[in-house]
Amino acid sequence: MWTYEAPVADMLHLLTRVLDAPASWAGQPAFADLDADTAGEVLQQAGRFAGEVLAPTNAPGDLHGCTWTPEGVTTPPGYREAYRAFVAGGWPALACTPEAGGQGLPQLLNMALFEMLAAANHGWTMYPGLLHGAYEVVLHHAVPELRARYLAKLVSGEWLGTMCLTEPQAGSDLGLVRTKAELTAGAAANGAPVAITGSKVFISGGDSDLTDNLVHLVLCRISGRSVDTPAGTKGLSLALVPKLLPDGTRNAVFCDGIEHKMGLHGSATCQMRFDRAQGWLIGEPHRGLAAMFLMMNAARLHVAMQGVGHLEAATQNAWRYAAERLQMRAPQRPSDAAAAGAGPDPIAWHPAMRRTLLTLRARTDACRTIAYWCALLLDEADHHPDAARRAAAADHVAILTPVAKSLFTELGHRSADEALQVWGGYGYVRDYGIEQTVRDSRIAMIYEGTNEIQAIDLVQRKLLADGGQRAGALRAVLAAEAAACRASTGPQPGLQPFADALDAQLADWAAVQQALQARAGTDAEYALRVADDVLAGVGHALMCWAWARIARTALDPARAPAAGGRSAASWLQSASFGLQWLLPQAQVHWRRALQADAALPFLVA
Amino acid sequence: MWTYEAPVADMLHLLTRVLDAPASWAGQPAFADLDADTAGEVLQQAGRFAGEVLAPTNAPGDLHGCTWTPEGVTTPPGYREAYRAFVAGGWPALACTPEAGGQGLPQLLNMALFEMLAAANHGWTMYPGLLHGAYEVVLHHAVPELRARYLAKLVSGEWLGTMCLTEPQAGSDLGLVRTKAELTAGAAANGAPVAITGSKVFISGGDSDLTDNLVHLVLCRISGRSVDTPAGTKGLSLALVPKLLPDGTRNAVFCDGIEHKMGLHGSATCQMRFDRAQGWLIGEPHRGLAAMFLMMNAARLHVAMQGVGHLEAATQNAWRYAAERLQMRAPQRPSDAAAAGAGPDPIAWHPAMRRTLLTLRARTDACRTIAYWCALLLDEADHHPDAARRAAAADHVAILTPVAKSLFTELGHRSADEALQVWGGYGYVRDYGIEQTVRDSRIAMIYEGTNEIQAIDLVQRKLLADGGQRAGALRAVLAAEAAACRASTGPQPGLQPFADALDAQLADWAAVQQALQARAGTDAEYALRVADDVLAGVGHALMCWAWARIARTALDPARAPAAGGRSAASWLQSASFGLQWLLPQAQVHWRRALQADAALPFLVA
Repeated sequence: MWTYEAPVADMLHLLTRVLDAPASWAGQPAFADLDADTAGEVLQQAGRFAGEVLAPTNAPGDLHGCTWTPEGVTTPPGYREAYRAFVAGGWPALACTPEAGGQGLPQLLNMALFEMLAAANHGWTMYPGLLHGAYEVVLHHAVPELRARYLAKLVSGEWLGTMCLTEPQAGSDLGLVRTKAELTAGAAANGAPVAITGSKVFISGGDSDLTDNLVHLVLCRISGRSVDTPAGTKGLSLALVPKLLPDGTRNAVFCDGIEHKMGLHGSATCQMRFDRAQGWLIGEPHRGLAAMFLMMNAARLHVAMQGVGHLEAATQNAWRYAAERLQMRAPQRPSDAAAAGAGPDPIAWHPAMRRTLLTLRARTDACRTIAYWCALLLDEADHHPDAARRAAAADHVAILTPVAKSLFTELGHRSADEALQVWGGYGYVRDYGIEQTVRDSRIAMIYEGTNEIQAIDLVQRKLLADGGQRAGALRAVLAAEAAACRASTGPQPGLQPFADALDAQLADWAAVQQALQARAGTDAEYALRVADDVLAGVGHALMCWAWARIARTALDPARAPAAGGRSAASWLQSASFGLQWLLPQAQVHWRRALQADAALPFLVA
Repeated sequence: MWTYEAPVADMLHLLTRVLDAPASWAGQPAFADLDADTAGEVLQQAGRFAGEVLAPTNAPGDLHGCTWTPEGVTTPPGYREAYRAFVAGGWPALACTPEAGGQGLPQLLNMALFEMLAAANHGWTMYPGLLHGAYEVVLHHAVPELRARYLAKLVSGEWLGTMCLTEPQAGSDLGLVRTKAELTAGAAANGAPVAITGSKVFISGGDSDLTDNLVHLVLCRISGRSVDTPAGTKGLSLALVPKLLPDGTRNAVFCDGIEHKMGLHGSATCQMRFDRAQGWLIGEPHRGLAAMFLMMNAARLHVAMQGVGHLEAATQNAWRYAAERLQMRAPQRPSDAAAAGAGPDPIAWHPAMRRTLLTLRARTDACRTIAYWCALLLDEADHHPDAARRAAAADHVAILTPVAKSLFTELGHRSADEALQVWGGYGYVRDYGIEQTVRDSRIAMIYEGTNEIQAIDLVQRKLLADGGQRAGALRAVLAAEAAACRASTGPQPGLQPFADALDAQLADWAAVQQALQARAGTDAEYALRVADDVLAGVGHALMCWAWARIARTALDPARAPAAGGRSAASWLQSASFGLQWLLPQAQVHWRRALQADAALPFLVA
């Protein structure tokens, strides 16, 4: 049966040995007290919560789903108890600033926490999933009065937060948002009271029974005779609209129904109606999208971690099942299984299944390494005392975020789908759980900006906008790994292929970067035509970097994995497999990205 | 909302113009009376049934699912009525021999019919899906008495048939089947009465309310003191076990429950128990698998057609939605849309969506062309008066069948999954239907031999077993298309890239074939390690052939599409897109298939 056990020892190996996170923390006063042992303890406890409290609610949550009545949403059995334990454990406060009552731990640990939560129960994780983003918006944009009223409750998790963007006619195109904010007193200014009217759809946790109160952050347009609201995205504002008003009465915020979805049945996806609901502007008028982007950027990395979580869940369940299920004699058997009987062998011994299982693991290792590195850089961007280092880290994160969101969620879903094949017919049956992972993981490719939107963000705003400077800086950092592998190839000849492959990937990326810039002026659509391939190519270059780094660590006796996790040989096996079997896919993407003349015509009937 | 309209004009274009089926029929006495108009009329009627009667039952069938009680299975609302109309229309008899009361039409038309049925409602189609296979087994293997009793009922569809192979411990490995057949009178011989005892799982339509009686074909082992049953697959026999005995009483065949599945909710996937059920051997004792393979081969092509059906359903629904949904200004607009307003444009104009939509269509066109060609060859293999032509066609079909099953079902599922992205968040919601297509299509990659098993069948039994002779013969036929394109390049320079690409694919295939043969003796696992890539490579070579043929037809004024379907420009656009954007993927597969030294180690913990 489907289970989830957080691979804490392997996560720690990546954090401490592969990525040297403690060295990074030591350079940041905010985390100067944090060491590998403390981080390990935090992850151990998070792993216990995810594996023991949350994972058992996953399948029942899918089966029962949420119940809607006009009075509100009831979550599936066990969800309330799990949320209570989550708050009691102080998990919402993990990465919040101590000044606001938070624990002040790095985003890196928060991301590892949310990877575990999503792996254990993605549906449940949707409820606290936007908490940190809401906290950031209130912390950075709310006027003091609102901050005093709402910040501590979001830090503790006593109240949950939602992000109300989408409307039926406004999905990827937020410029079409119509929800209106009427000023009820004073001029349009941060903190001004407003009456919100409009309909929002796809609002995760728009209502629930997990908390008494909810803090909705609503994208809207200020309307009023004396206000000149620009059209499109430039005229959007943000309002904070609570479910319960400060006097404890119910605000005019209604959940009119919930969606029946392919998966994530435990997460209430709400149709919301604001009927002159009382709210307050948060952030500057007409600058709502900028404030919201703060939330969306955090959310994008959260979604990327969901991809890693699904990868892990699919991988560990497939490995377990393949070791137990016996079908047919294997053409060859492991050398230590010589005494195996005459009967059928574990399917894990059959070549087709070895290939699938190693594919799953190599992807999981690479994506997790990139994800943690991105989170580590995010912490440096926020907390490093050296401004140049902060700026460099922020530049790396700017490129890594859309790639991580798109690559990990696609691999998370596709890998779950490929893993299902390991179970054969049983994989198609609910009882074995993997089909739920396939269904649940699908949404991550869509929300917080579809993966296509991520690719456009990458090429237009990240690779092209600055003439390729940030991209060049990131490639230089990745190239250092190739150099490190090369420097080790005296004692470790096995690293040579990693160095060569990584250099080749970076050369391909540089060539594509060059082509993007050269053609930007003459063929406006070129970058958009090849955006998906560019993102996939960059993603493969990053995976190559991760496999190189994992391999170099595995071959370094001074950085041997701690007990309780996988062996150095296992890490090396996965990295080598990735290099040989998965990296070749990069060539298709790079080549197609350079295929400037390939037509992408309008559709002919 | 999701709908399905059979693209009859486009199917006919492929049949008559691209594949010249009428010329093939003219050469076969069995089909000498069949012409393009008659075939068109049959497809028109089939399309009406699929689109008007069956498609409206698809979403409700998913929502309601089947109901199980100890008395039996109740199918979803509308299923009985649709099945009654199906029988009344004479559809089960379409490709059955006139001697048995059939219409004697080609398999090609039957396959096109089943493509439509699967596209319109895959769950419902599972019930009649095994009818033709059961008919073939009874026709070719049953003793006259059984044939007299059951054949006509299967031809008319008054009774349905099932295929009872899988047991909990015996999935891909049928050698582990335990269900036992005790001889109740006489010696082990074709037609001998037996008492069947055992449990079967994953039996599609093992019980239903669509017909009174069911004809189960049960894989079993003869047990008895005087019978020497070999172990493994060589000891398997086949028995015919009806739900109702000839005297009208209920046989000891029980449906103990149905599976709760990811999709295909309208199809009852039954757990069956045979409790000394009365049956009769069908075919020679211990030769049950050979008899069953007759049924499984037909079933494999049926499953391939399900893949084509899902491709079509996903494609046409995505095209429709993308033309209606307005979001954001497109960076460029079609030249004939110059007068478009200032508002958001159809998402079909955005480059990322154009790419997805053209991907869907190019795959659909290629797979359908290959599928119909395979069915056309199947008819020639059965009916052509020239023995050499029959043998050659059978050899082609032997290679095409596993490729078609695996390639089409994977593309069917993956394309539905990619199509879902076109709807954004709405795609994840039940009401829009595409998520059902994703869920329903997943099973086709598993049943009738998993796609991994198909790849092993391809490399071991089809490419290697005869030293590559059949593969060489098939490549020669495909090469003729490249030559035809070249011969046309005077008047049609646009065909040159198709000819070049096809020649290159065939050269890659030949190189891989060579490597497979060369290494078969020294590295027993090599073929198995690369089997998935070899199948994907051959699949791409076939798609390249299809695009070339489609393009050559589109550029031939003498073979212009008939009115009511797509324009020649549309066919050419799709083929050119396939060549430029999809074919590059082949290189990854060919290169990986040649990567002899790539390790595929046993898993290290």
